[in-house]
Amino acid sequence: MQVATHQSTPFTLTLAAAGLLLGAHAVAADKPLPPRPTVADVVKASPASDWRPLDADNTLYMETAGGRVIIELAPVFAPNHVANIKALVREQYFDGLAIIRSQDNYVVQWGDADDAHPKPVKTAKSALKAEFTIPLKNDPHFTRLAERDVYAPQVGHSNGIPVARDPKAGLTWIAHCYGTIGVGRDNDADSGSGTSLYAVNGHAPRHLDRNITMVGRVVSGMPLLSTLPRGTGVMGFYEKPESSAAIVSVKVAADVPAAERSALEIMRTDSASFQAVVNAQRNRGGPWTKYAAGHVELCNVPIPVRPRPAP
Amino acid sequence: MQVATHQSTPFTLTLAAAGLLLGAHAVAADKPLPPRPTVADVVKASPASDWRPLDADNTLYMETAGGRVIIELAPVFAPNHVANIKALVREQYFDGLAIIRSQDNYVVQWGDADDAHPKPVKTAKSALKAEFTIPLKNDPHFTRLAERDVYAPQVGHSNGIPVARDPKAGLTWIAHCYGTIGVGRDNDADSGSGTSLYAVNGHAPRHLDRNITMVGRVVSGMPLLSTLPRGTGVMGFYEKPESSAAIVSVKVAADVPAAERSALEIMRTDSASFQAVVNAQRNRGGPWTKYAAGHVELCNVPIPVRPRPAP
Repeated sequence: MQVATHQSTPFTLTLAAAGLLLGAHAVAADKPLPPRPTVADVVKASPASDWRPLDADNTLYMETAGGRVIIELAPVFAPNHVANIKALVREQYFDGLAIIRSQDNYVVQWGDADDAHPKPVKTAKSALKAEFTIPLKNDPHFTRLAERDVYAPQVGHSNGIPVARDPKAGLTWIAHCYGTIGVGRDNDADSGSGTSLYAVNGHAPRHLDRNITMVGRVVSGMPLLSTLPRGTGVMGFYEKPESSAAIVSVKVAADVPAAERSALEIMRTDSASFQAVVNAQRNRGGPWTKYAAGHVELCNVPIPVRPRPAP
Repeated sequence: MQVATHQSTPFTLTLAAAGLLLGAHAVAADKPLPPRPTVADVVKASPASDWRPLDADNTLYMETAGGRVIIELAPVFAPNHVANIKALVREQYFDGLAIIRSQDNYVVQWGDADDAHPKPVKTAKSALKAEFTIPLKNDPHFTRLAERDVYAPQVGHSNGIPVARDPKAGLTWIAHCYGTIGVGRDNDADSGSGTSLYAVNGHAPRHLDRNITMVGRVVSGMPLLSTLPRGTGVMGFYEKPESSAAIVSVKVAADVPAAERSALEIMRTDSASFQAVVNAQRNRGGPWTKYAAGHVELCNVPIPVRPRPAP
């Protein structure tokens, strides 16, 4: 079968060897490229210490008609919004609401479709001061990519999240990559609260960076959101409720009995294995690849997540 | 309703004024941003001469269970593959085949799922020499973006297609942006023919650039491909046929009776209106936007397509 992409080939990963690829240049391939570790190879060879479990206190399970969407929140980047979203979840605000918008190659959004009779907020706050950016010093977890990008002089990862930085302004923020989650708001910067959230379902709409409070990332179940029928209303809002888009419940993982939790772990983005993942994506090897890019763009870096191996 | 994005506001577009925004710098917004033309404003204000009809001789209608997917081929970038795909279409090669792969945030692929008993190719060729790149001089339609990107020193558009360039190597190629279409192949660079095609359905996998013969772009109906259920096999291949993924037929638009054609037009990417679209995406204005990026990445530039106005 003809495939569009490099299929993994067996390769014994040496992290030291992978490290040598950092900064390798693109080479036009008149001759076959040497074998190089793939992302799958790196995952397979990685030590257990280069992984961490999802943070149960900051992980949400959104149960939809089709299954569970798992979100890891990023309290470092939006402490007040993350706290408020957890308060909303714990007062069962989202239970029985729905995905209300699905715009192709942009965002899928959920919350309350009923503007006329909005669901009351009980214990949580109804509006919060914007957390579009944070001071650099507030993020102790940043690992920088060698590459900058079109939108920011520095980009990289922080505790599993793609982020961008402006050292001159002393600011950092979550970048709008596939699966990242933002807080819908009205025109007022301080009008969002977390009652309406969206996830990026297409190419990174980075023009939204620094305009929205970003709160985390979908780490599992993204296809449940990305395959929803596109809304036919303005900006992809549904004009009538979609049966596939109901939200059964949203819970904080820590509140869910252990037996019902999803045992996932995420590769530490400050680990040697993650550096090897980045290098594998920068420079793919033979036999399928004919040209190794030599560079990688922030939102094109995979962030591996997998079931936790049995202890 | 809280929305995740800038909603269009009425704005009388002056192309001259829009031009002044080229190269504008990002400005942190402590005060409201001035109103600026949105992409929708630019489209509304654009003269008829800044649009062209789709090229019927190089447009394909792929009729699926859910409706029509419209593809514009780019013969300048892959003359032999485009000719061969049209030959395949005209011998009804694709009719009755299916979409065989849907991998989240990567590609959706179609062709023959039956490796054991492949559908015979009649008049078309079964393998073609790779057309991964072409000499710069072969592309007379390039309009350059001010920005470079992570993968190429020059990027821009050519006759409705996002492209990248390496002036030192004297080469240009179609960039793997959302909706662009490539030719599946085996490990041999010259093993593709167009019998298996794929479209990008997520963030741009630009590491595939210069590794695949790219032949065009989906200009309408992308949601019919992007919302297909993800395949559960390796790399998102379907393990059993998906009823939603049947291809009823593929036809060249020029072969279809005029009354059954989709009358669409695409904004000329070498027009002043398209420059204004690029500027609108670089620098969004108030009242929703609080921070204008000042830059735009190639695959984040919208390429407007609309029904042809009645004559």
